[in-house]
Amino acid sequence: MINEKMYGLGSRRSAIREIFEYAKRRASEVGAENVFDFSIGNPSVPAPACVDEAIGRILKETPSVELHGYTPAQGDKKCRDRIAANLNARFGADISGDDLYMTCGAAACLTVSIHALACPGDEFIAFAPYFAEYKVFVEGAGAKFTAIPAEKDTFLPDLEALQKAMNRSVKGIIINSPNNPTGVVYGEETVRKLARFLQEKEKEYGHPVYLISDEPYRELVYDEEAKVPYVPRYYPDTLVCYSYSKSLSLPGERIGYIAVNPRAADAKALYAAVCGAGRVLGFVCAPALFQRVAAECDGKTADLGVYRRNRDLLYRRLTDLGFSCTYPDGAFYLFVKSPEPDADAFCERARKYELLFVSGEDFGCPGYVRIAYCVPTECIGRALPRFASLAAEYGLVKKG
Amino acid sequence: MINEKMYGLGSRRSAIREIFEYAKRRASEVGAENVFDFSIGNPSVPAPACVDEAIGRILKETPSVELHGYTPAQGDKKCRDRIAANLNARFGADISGDDLYMTCGAAACLTVSIHALACPGDEFIAFAPYFAEYKVFVEGAGAKFTAIPAEKDTFLPDLEALQKAMNRSVKGIIINSPNNPTGVVYGEETVRKLARFLQEKEKEYGHPVYLISDEPYRELVYDEEAKVPYVPRYYPDTLVCYSYSKSLSLPGERIGYIAVNPRAADAKALYAAVCGAGRVLGFVCAPALFQRVAAECDGKTADLGVYRRNRDLLYRRLTDLGFSCTYPDGAFYLFVKSPEPDADAFCERARKYELLFVSGEDFGCPGYVRIAYCVPTECIGRALPRFASLAAEYGLVKKG
Repeated sequence: MINEKMYGLGSRRSAIREIFEYAKRRASEVGAENVFDFSIGNPSVPAPACVDEAIGRILKETPSVELHGYTPAQGDKKCRDRIAANLNARFGADISGDDLYMTCGAAACLTVSIHALACPGDEFIAFAPYFAEYKVFVEGAGAKFTAIPAEKDTFLPDLEALQKAMNRSVKGIIINSPNNPTGVVYGEETVRKLARFLQEKEKEYGHPVYLISDEPYRELVYDEEAKVPYVPRYYPDTLVCYSYSKSLSLPGERIGYIAVNPRAADAKALYAAVCGAGRVLGFVCAPALFQRVAAECDGKTADLGVYRRNRDLLYRRLTDLGFSCTYPDGAFYLFVKSPEPDADAFCERARKYELLFVSGEDFGCPGYVRIAYCVPTECIGRALPRFASLAAEYGLVKKG
Repeated sequence: MINEKMYGLGSRRSAIREIFEYAKRRASEVGAENVFDFSIGNPSVPAPACVDEAIGRILKETPSVELHGYTPAQGDKKCRDRIAANLNARFGADISGDDLYMTCGAAACLTVSIHALACPGDEFIAFAPYFAEYKVFVEGAGAKFTAIPAEKDTFLPDLEALQKAMNRSVKGIIINSPNNPTGVVYGEETVRKLARFLQEKEKEYGHPVYLISDEPYRELVYDEEAKVPYVPRYYPDTLVCYSYSKSLSLPGERIGYIAVNPRAADAKALYAAVCGAGRVLGFVCAPALFQRVAAECDGKTADLGVYRRNRDLLYRRLTDLGFSCTYPDGAFYLFVKSPEPDADAFCERARKYELLFVSGEDFGCPGYVRIAYCVPTECIGRALPRFASLAAEYGLVKKG
């Protein structure tokens, strides 16, 4: 009598959550220090000091009724203006506060954007590996979800595969850079090529194909040369989905925004549809206090140096041990090739050493595992001998 | 190319918001002290001291990564357990934390509950006048929304009208007590009768008919004898949709919960469907800090005495002036009969005196206006002579 699809989605626990609970159980059996949970993408560094300072200042300076009251559905005007000004200063975005819609985090950005766009019969495409909830969100809006493989090894968008999959029903392409689960960053040349391809398709079809750019990891890049291009500068029909979850270590507070590119086709109508979708889904407004905190701290970050150190350490040592992994410029994940074809079996074998990963299967990409390195660095240090034993079990050949 | 329905919902501003913006414009023309905006249901009393204390204590005592991290999708376990214990103590609810699902406020409670239940072809019923977003939420879940009139004058559920409207496709009935916009409270006898009626229908149909009890005003009752019954005690197949927006004056922070009655049909599956719906809609989890604040302050309230004084003052004076209005036990609204058949024309005439109301049309109940008295009491005092002039213009007969 209830909705079976919702029941299915609510009762089949996600693989990640299942591992998370296994980790807790194991920790109670063998001690927390002996379990190495690399499964969850939960920031491991505290929110930056500016967050606490902003909370304190805002609570002190803003009358309660104003502070905790409803903001407009699209978000507090001052907050939106401030964030827009930052986007203009940092990326030459040429955007105003009236093009921003504050949301309850990146997931809400995606569901609101997809509901704003999706008409019956529409299709949305993502490159595998992809964040599994994309499928849930697209299908929840009544549209068709299609995953096409990314380029082998580089994990960049495969335009040949995209060419084969493209058709007039494709309303949007979802990209995610820096990428979960590969850590790969789409550089300027990649974005330019994708934009050129889509612009040709738009001309051919005579209607827009929207790019939904999911960017919760925008600030999490660790090399000078790895720049995250501001996608709307390359492709007008873009909605940027941003969240402060990773940059400010605030995933539980649910705060982010959709930036509707003012140069998108029918941008004003698109923005109105975003507002309508937020209303239909029951969002009312993004959390009021954290709208203000995010606006005050926008552009600042938690201490991302920890992630960089973790990436350097883990990437170097795992590849030294003979594991195969595309170099990750950002996010906080390594996407490691399973040394045996069945990545689930590899995960099982790793569990013997209390090493917990997520199978690439859960990202639409069998034969790989995701290793989330948003953990204390000392934990990685203690895990390395176990990785070495695991490598030895597979007879991997050491480098260096 | 975008979704036209979403566009329509996002571009047609709600009547209430339109009045709100008119009020701001008028205030800049004639001075804020000369505009009397009774249109918006935004709490006018500050959050209670316990909220600030809780925020301070939680920030101080909880490590950042734990505090601002993801909670489980259904909410922090300790918070849910604490709220469940309060429900048991206050209402004999016999509920556990595992029956609660923390949400981003009452709107999210409703969309999540409706999506959890709605199957293709399903219908949901509400009694008019009703909160206009019910229709948006139900239709957004792909179900049919039907409004049937409440009993004349009392605004209680009209069971004869419900009997006529009932059919096997009805998956749920949405009730709202204390009621927006009438302020009427459904007492024990009313709930008992409704429960009896629905239980007979369940037997007749051989399947559950769920009661969605929307209770953001639960604590806002002003008379000793006006008790708000805990609906699940009377009707097993109930989902309680609660929000802290009004009780703690935190509407912008988006925090509330769904209580799935553990004695509902297939309660465990229903709870799983609620989790699935939250996932599909993109909620991830309710805001983490305010989950903890709500749990700590649950059962406490802002200074509701202001609303009581406002209600007493405005109800007495308006009925003295000859206006007709059902006595409101709770919420912060008067639902006043328009002295002319066309309530929109009445609203227009009131605007000449800078008195701003919302037409009952917007609640599916023509011929009435909603007067929100969540304003400073002195503002009501200054508005009374204007109400007197308005009454005189209609030739209403003074009482007392």
